[in-house]
Order: sequence, then C-alpha cells, then structure tokens
Amino acid sequence: MLRRKYMLQVIEHVFEKYGFAPLETPAMELLSVLTGKYGDEGDQLIFKILNSGDFTAELKQSGESLDSIDPKKLASRICEKALRYDLTVPFARYVAMNRGQLTFPFKRYQMQPVWRADRPQKGRYREFMQCDADVVGTPSLLCEAEIMCMISEVLTNLGIQDFSILINHRAILRGLATKAGLGGMESAYCTALDKLDKIGAEEVANQLHLLGITVEAAKTHLAELQAAQTLSSFKEIFNANTDLDLGIQDLEQVMQWSTSMGLASKHLRFDPTLARGLSYYTGPIFEVKVNGVQMGSISGGGRYNDLTGLFGVPDIPGVGFSFGVDRLYDVLDALGKFEEVAHRGTEVLVCAMDDISFTYGLSVAQKLRRASLKTELYPEVSKLKKQLSYANSKRIPIAIVLGSDEATAETVTIKWLDSGKQTTVALQDMIDHLQPKKV
Amino acid sequence: MLRRKYMLQVIEHVFEKYGFAPLETPAMELLSVLTGKYGDEGDQLIFKILNSGDFTAELKQSGESLDSIDPKKLASRICEKALRYDLTVPFARYVAMNRGQLTFPFKRYQMQPVWRADRPQKGRYREFMQCDADVVGTPSLLCEAEIMCMISEVLTNLGIQDFSILINHRAILRGLATKAGLGGMESAYCTALDKLDKIGAEEVANQLHLLGITVEAAKTHLAELQAAQTLSSFKEIFNANTDLDLGIQDLEQVMQWSTSMGLASKHLRFDPTLARGLSYYTGPIFEVKVNGVQMGSISGGGRYNDLTGLFGVPDIPGVGFSFGVDRLYDVLDALGKFEEVAHRGTEVLVCAMDDISFTYGLSVAQKLRRASLKTELYPEVSKLKKQLSYANSKRIPIAIVLGSDEATAETVTIKWLDSGKQTTVALQDMIDHLQPKKV
Repeated sequence: MLRRKYMLQVIEHVFEKYGFAPLETPAMELLSVLTGKYGDEGDQLIFKILNSGDFTAELKQSGESLDSIDPKKLASRICEKALRYDLTVPFARYVAMNRGQLTFPFKRYQMQPVWRADRPQKGRYREFMQCDADVVGTPSLLCEAEIMCMISEVLTNLGIQDFSILINHRAILRGLATKAGLGGMESAYCTALDKLDKIGAEEVANQLHLLGITVEAAKTHLAELQAAQTLSSFKEIFNANTDLDLGIQDLEQVMQWSTSMGLASKHLRFDPTLARGLSYYTGPIFEVKVNGVQMGSISGGGRYNDLTGLFGVPDIPGVGFSFGVDRLYDVLDALGKFEEVAHRGTEVLVCAMDDISFTYGLSVAQKLRRASLKTELYPEVSKLKKQLSYANSKRIPIAIVLGSDEATAETVTIKWLDSGKQTTVALQDMIDHLQPKKV
Repeated sequence: MLRRKYMLQVIEHVFEKYGFAPLETPAMELLSVLTGKYGDEGDQLIFKILNSGDFTAELKQSGESLDSIDPKKLASRICEKALRYDLTVPFARYVAMNRGQLTFPFKRYQMQPVWRADRPQKGRYREFMQCDADVVGTPSLLCEAEIMCMISEVLTNLGIQDFSILINHRAILRGLATKAGLGGMESAYCTALDKLDKIGAEEVANQLHLLGITVEAAKTHLAELQAAQTLSSFKEIFNANTDLDLGIQDLEQVMQWSTSMGLASKHLRFDPTLARGLSYYTGPIFEVKVNGVQMGSISGGGRYNDLTGLFGVPDIPGVGFSFGVDRLYDVLDALGKFEEVAHRGTEVLVCAMDDISFTYGLSVAQKLRRASLKTELYPEVSKLKKQLSYANSKRIPIAIVLGSDEATAETVTIKWLDSGKQTTVALQDMIDHLQPKKV
C-alpha cells in the first residue's frame, strides 16, 4: 500500500503541474450506459448490481415468469446499475452530461478502481486501479507534446531512466494500407500489423496475403516498414500520399514541441508498425516501454475526435492516455526502485522503560511529530527486546530509548537499528541528530 | 474535488505522523460477511452483486423455480458478493483473516467509499467516503490520548479553532444505570440517555420511568448528570461504585496523557450523558462537535474489546474512530475555510499571441513547472480576451502574456488577474516575481 501510494502520488504531482485537475465519478453507472461499449466479451465481464427492494416486483406485475426469461435478458431486467468497467466510458458520459458547465479545453485526470468479472489469476484482479488523463475540446497537438513530457517526467521521478515512447499516427497507418495495396482495409491491415511483435513478419505477411496481396508484396512492404526507424528514413522509403503527409506533419510538430519543452529525443521513437487496438483513435497514438524489462507497455494513448458521440454529443476532439498502474508497479519492483520507499512508514519508535520515562516519552513523541517525523510511542511499558522486535517487524529505522536517566536529565538515547549504533543527546538536540538520517 | 482532496490530505498527513499506515480493502465482500452485521434495516440497504455467467444455473440444476422463492432468499442465492457497507466490518474481517501476519499493535487508517441503497437526498448519497482509523492489539489508553491529539491537530490544521471533544466511558454509563436503579438495564438506559439532546430531560425522564423507576427519581438523576460538567464535579455528585471508579480512572489517564502531549484542555470535555449508539464499545467513547455550527458530530469513536469475535477471533482489544467526511466538508464550507483552496488548481496560464511566442511559451511553461507551479500553456494561438476568459472561468490567478516583443527580448509579461496589475520582467527573474504570490 505504501508503495502504491508513493507511485500514485508521483503521477498525481506531475499531472497537476501540467494543469490537470482530479475528477472522480461514482463506482456505479447505469447498466445501459456500459452495455455495448466493450464488445460481447466485455459485456459478460461487467459486474451488475441487483436492484434493491423486491427486484422481482415489476416482472411479477406484468405476469412474466423469471424461469422463462433468458438469463442474460433477465439480468438487465433485475439490474439497473453496474460497476464501472473502465474510466473512459464514465468520462465520456460525464463530459456529454456536463458539457454546458465545463470550461474547454477540459483537462482532467482520474485514478479510481474499475471492476471486471475475470477469473482471478496472477496479474489479473477483479478490482484494479486505472489512471487516465485526458484533454478534451481542442485539436492542438500541444496536448500530445505535453503528454510526452508528462510520461517522461513521471518515469524519471520514479527512477526509471531507460524507456521509449513509441509514436505513430492513424493517418500513417491509413496511408500505409494504401501503399500496401490495401486501401480502405485499414482496420484489417492494422489488426495484422499489431501482431508483428508476437508472431513475426513471416506470419503477418501471410495474413496480409489473405487480405488480397501477394506474399512477396507483403514481405517487401514489411521489410520497408521495419527499415523505417525514423521519420526521415520513413520519408525516404515511402513516397508521400495525402494521409502520410498529414501524419508525418503532425508527428513532426509533436516531436518538435516536446523537444522544445526539454524532452530528451532519445526517449521518443517513431514506430510505423505501432497500431494499438482501439478503433476510436483518429490521430497520433503512442505506447511506452521500459527497456531491459520483460513487460508489455506501461502506458499508452492517442487522439480521438469523437469520444462523446456515443452519448449524442459529437465533435468534441481530445487526446487521452493512461498508466497501467499494476504493470508499472511490477516494473518498479523488478528494478528495485521501491527499496527506499519501504521506510516511508513509521520513522521513529519511542521506547519507554518505566512509567516515568513513558510520561516523558509523550512529549518526546510530540516533538518528533512536530518535526514531521512519523512517530510511534510503544503503547506499553515493556522489555526493550519486545519493543525493538516490534520496530524490526515494521522496519522502523530508528528507536529512541528512554529510561529514568534520560527522563531525569532530559536527554534521549537514539538507536539506529540498521547499524546498532547509538548515542545519547540532549532533548533539544534530538531533531538535529535525526534530520540528516531522515529517509 | 480539489477541496475534498485537500481535506483528506490534511487528515492523512496527521494519521501518518502518528504511525498509522494506509490500508485498502476490496469494494466487494462476500455477502455472507456483511449480512447480519447491521440489523435488518441495514441488510436491506446492502448493494448485492449479481453472480456473473448464468446466475440461474444452480437453481435450475436442483430443479427449483425462481418464481417460487421469496425475493429476499432468492437474492442471496443469485448474489455471492456485495459492496461494502462500512469500513468496520471489512477491517474486522481483514484482521481476523491476517492475524498470523500482522504485527500488533496494528495501526491502520482507511479512506474509501462505502455504498448504501438509501434513497438519495440532500446530504445522503449512495456512495460516500468513510475515513476510519484503528489501533488493535493493545489495551493501552495511550491510543485514546493520541487519538484526542490527532483529532485536535486535524481540525486545527483545517483552520477550525472552536471545537469540543466530548468523552465518556461505557463503565460510567453502566455505573450510572446502577445509580439510577436500573442496574443490568444499561442498554435501555443508554438508548434513553442518547436522546437527551433531541427530546429534552422531561421526555427522557418519562422513558426511564417506563424502565421501572419513578419519574421523580429519573428527574433527579438527570439533573445531577447535567450538573456534573467536569470529572471532579462528577466525583462530588456521585458516590463511587466499581464501574464508576474504573471509568473515572481511565478517563483521568486519557486526559492527563493527552494534556502532556500538548492538547489544550479546553478542547476536551467530560460528558456523562454521551452514550453513542454502537453496542460494541466497551471502554472510553468520544464524539467531536464544532461549536457555533449547526451540525451533528463530525467525528467519533471508542474502545471495543472484541471487534473480530464475529469472525471467530475473540479477545483482540482495540480503539477506533472515524471522521464524517461529508459533514466535515459542510462545516468547512460553512466556516469559509475553503476559500484559499479554490486556487489550488492551475496557478499560471501562459498565453501566446503568435506562433513565435507560442514556441517561446513552451520553455516558459516548463520553467514554471520546474518551480512546482501548476501551469498551463493555452493550447492555441488566439485572442488574449479568449485566453483570459479561460483563466477566469478556471479561477487561475496569474497569466503570463507573451507576444513577439517578449519572445525576442526573452522577457515575460506577468498579469495578476485579481488586481489587473501587470509587469514585464526578464525570463530569468520570472520565478522570483511569482513565488511570493504563490498560493
């Protein structure tokens, strides 16, 4: 929990520095708001809430038998509400409902749990945290540039140096489909391309072939793509068409602006094979990988121009992205970046050896807290061994040991539990002795 | 949202300074864990989650008809899980389940939403935040003393000066029941006493009469109680019995220790008529009122010695309390304590007048963010009026206006939107000009 909190605070801090405000929506949405947004499989995984009171009353009134209704249909008759399945749909619903009151461009972030009725297994929980940020109401590519900087800042602040933000553009994918002789089949083309990492060029070539081009042509196309490692080599390899032009121009703008904002260009990599599944993206798309760690992308997003269309409010453009909080946690854990955080619990345990020093300990503890040190006074007068074993099991780094000597002389004995080193100092000097050791 | 966050952060900060660690439990608990813990009325208000997949399969297999089962029973046959109704039961379940791994005394706080199927109305929501802190595993009254200090520190940090922590003890209530001639009827005695504030002494006397004493005796008893405003006057008015002795001794200890820790004694008030509803309290009980505001208690709690007994783990003593977050919010709002917080959103809006100053604005914005100022660059080059109206509707206090003059000379024009005052300074001096104005 302390580690998670630390991670989320780092993210939050960066989001707020870029002017994103926190938003929370209720855990429960109308079932009808959620149904049909995540495909058939997704619909099955939505947790539905049984109507309260006599949930059978309406059916009984209309003379229907519960036994005779198909369970899937019955569910939506006895459940009006459901738990949110992601943060995107509730956000779109929120923007559509409140568009009259919102100031556009509207920048918000949202960190809340979502629920899915997956079978629980390693790395998959029924309740897990999502962390989204969006700007809606402007077509400006500044949003993308700022997001690149935010991602970089979050990772750097968490101690991750070696990462790549892969970036591509839906127009480039459209243009490439045309180049490959698959104009108008962009979606199938992207589905095939998306598997390049997993199944390799050979297999993807076969799949493109099934769409109607020769295996040979598909192979050449993929080889060209894989050779186009930068925007400039891409421009040399592929002659322009309208779509490619549009995409390249946008990406050049994003790259130029984010570099002007101080993003190290080594972190930003054009990848014409990046496709991303979600069909609602319409502009730049991106994904973040931590190098040297076996793990999928830890963040991703893109520009869409009609998120709220589903709720009857068309033409609100925006760009959004999210951090995969659980994956990011695993990466930080694998890289040992949490080690210092473990100490962010209680920092000092005050141990009293008798009743007099316990009373003295009350004011010692308050002095420590006033200096913002997280402090506990062991609540009972007991053997030092017992008290230190409590400190050990809670990984508290410092003990202040108080006996009648200390109470009389107004001193404290400071014991650093890692080294076993200890020293006795005047109470008034205690904070000075601790502050440099403060974690 | 910003106000709520600010309030919760203040609470969190104090909790952690006293060595409480954050705990979160899943939103969903087994329905069987929750049922029977909140009385019949409470059980009706628990949100139940429909089993996923074919929730009728088991019933059909055993040949039962859904139509023939009473809806209440049917609900528990088709719903295994439910949303938590409070934080106390999930916490007790957690302690019981993990007792082998926990280090006692175990200090945790929990700030999470809970759900109740109440009809929504002003001040009552179906989803609302609860904020609990508990220490389990020690009988030490230091916990109570520290809690008094924590409550005081939270309220002081939130800007509330005039508040009272009312304190009483279950043993005192037991002893008083005996004094009133209602020995062994403590629970009914407390129920009557609890209404003193609402219905007055006359009515409470009638209710005590119904329990078996004369109206006259009841009136005398209540008058004595109301005269006992301090522990010392209480001791003068009521001759000791075993229960009273125990209670008085505990409360004197709590008061002495919390005073030693720096709690101003004016904030701590003995109130022998304080009863608090929950029957699981066994030791000191307390409630917090903000004076001069028409509002029920904003915090309360007490000691219990068998919270986990319900889950088969008896004899874990503890003490817990909670802040009523929604009420506290209303109090702060009523006292105007949120006024400064409103600005805790974006602090600076950078406005560019043309493309050249927009590019310049990219680095200006980054400079502001590096100084931890929450900053937005308006994402489009547009009329200053439009940009400033965006700042106004978001209550952003400062605008940095950049035209081609500023971009060429590496200066910035700072405009304080409240006063309309503005000044042009060198870029390198910008932060110095802003920091004293930083909220």
